[in-house]
Amino acid sequence: MSTDYVHGYSDAEAVRLADQATSLTGLLHAGTRYPAGSRVLEAGCAVGAQTVILAANSPAASIVALDISAPSLAEAQRQVSRAGLGHVTFCRGDIYHPPFAPGSFDHVFVSFVLEHLPDPVAALGALQTVLRPGGSITVIEGDHGSAYFHPDHAGARRAIQCLIDLQARAGGDSLIGRRLYPLLVQAGFRDVAVSPRMVYVDASRPDLVDGFTRKTFTAMVEGVGGQAVSEGLISDADWAAGIAGLHRAAEDDGTFCYTFFKAEACRGILTS
Amino acid sequence: MSTDYVHGYSDAEAVRLADQATSLTGLLHAGTRYPAGSRVLEAGCAVGAQTVILAANSPAASIVALDISAPSLAEAQRQVSRAGLGHVTFCRGDIYHPPFAPGSFDHVFVSFVLEHLPDPVAALGALQTVLRPGGSITVIEGDHGSAYFHPDHAGARRAIQCLIDLQARAGGDSLIGRRLYPLLVQAGFRDVAVSPRMVYVDASRPDLVDGFTRKTFTAMVEGVGGQAVSEGLISDADWAAGIAGLHRAAEDDGTFCYTFFKAEACRGILTS
Repeated sequence: MSTDYVHGYSDAEAVRLADQATSLTGLLHAGTRYPAGSRVLEAGCAVGAQTVILAANSPAASIVALDISAPSLAEAQRQVSRAGLGHVTFCRGDIYHPPFAPGSFDHVFVSFVLEHLPDPVAALGALQTVLRPGGSITVIEGDHGSAYFHPDHAGARRAIQCLIDLQARAGGDSLIGRRLYPLLVQAGFRDVAVSPRMVYVDASRPDLVDGFTRKTFTAMVEGVGGQAVSEGLISDADWAAGIAGLHRAAEDDGTFCYTFFKAEACRGILTS
Repeated sequence: MSTDYVHGYSDAEAVRLADQATSLTGLLHAGTRYPAGSRVLEAGCAVGAQTVILAANSPAASIVALDISAPSLAEAQRQVSRAGLGHVTFCRGDIYHPPFAPGSFDHVFVSFVLEHLPDPVAALGALQTVLRPGGSITVIEGDHGSAYFHPDHAGARRAIQCLIDLQARAGGDSLIGRRLYPLLVQAGFRDVAVSPRMVYVDASRPDLVDGFTRKTFTAMVEGVGGQAVSEGLISDADWAAGIAGLHRAAEDDGTFCYTFFKAEACRGILTS
């Protein structure tokens, strides 16, 4: 598993992920409630932003949160403890080789993880083996190519493209949301159903202007500015103009659109 | 009002518009039902694709359908008669100067019209004057910049950009969906609420693969190919490659996304 996590592991990033999880909770977690006693694997829990929500929404499930990064796991554990949630076990391991016996889980939950992986189909295939027959998977990913805004701004689009390019250089794919259906089919899952979750922001929704346009999306793009400039993808001046273009869309006559994709599927017939 | 309607007025175009209206009826017209006796103006009815749905959904409303083009009005009238709907009156006139007394209507409905207008705010302002105090407007528009797909394809994006550029040359804006909120606010409407209506297509929805990806969106782009090439926006070969890229997204491992925007608002306080 690649450790070139494009957003980095800084404290600011942990705050951003937590902000994102809080403001988008309703949109992304709607419909995800696991029954009492069910065994749930969160694969790639990172710093626990989604883990806290997952655990709060399924208080009687037994949740295992897996991640490759020990510092991330420690932070996730702190978040979950702080939220007073006791039914999450943390486990360090590789999503390509999950350290569990076949059929260990009723459900697998994967959120904002596949975008960072060089081989998402292999990861999905590996996760399928730890699902029991009839078990289900839920995948949530963004798609940075789904972002558009008014006023349209070529510089802002170019700044977003830097983020997409950096993620590609790190072996990931930040246009992965639109690919969830074919990825899950290719990995052998059945009954794949994808539900796009669009965020639309205008001045009538000031909480989203601030919480999403500024503090989630624009903050995420801004976070890779240093790297984009130092890797020669863009000049300092063009970068600043692009970020200004994104902030422009948060003004009173601006609008902003972004779409997350949520997929659900059932374990298929395993051939190996 | 510009008569450089980018899609042209051919019979094939009339069929495309009718196909579009049928397959998207549920998505776009959901929530639009006018009460018995209400006076409704459809501004810019074109060949009647939406008029038929509007009239069928509000069988006891009194509907006036306005358009600048006599041949379009004649075709719209044929469509409405063929559907056995008797409560639509057709009227020729300019959307910038609607030929009605102030306050004549309870509701105005505008669908796939503003994208073609050089001054959509002026048109909205003019329509507001024929609404009674407390009357409402409903606007539906697409946004060609909201189209993205898997596999991503630079050539297909370029072909779509030709359509956007041609519409801009004709004085229109095919990225208008994302602008509905500020346009309505600027025209003086109040309580503006925009609801995006996203079309997501993958192989689990074969009706949409055929009905939307191929026969609505790709057909619409294909329709401007001759003009795009003859105006020097793109070469024949690049055009063909772009269209092939769009068809590629309709294969079994492809996906396609497009978003329409539906806005509702109330008449504001008229200053003139």
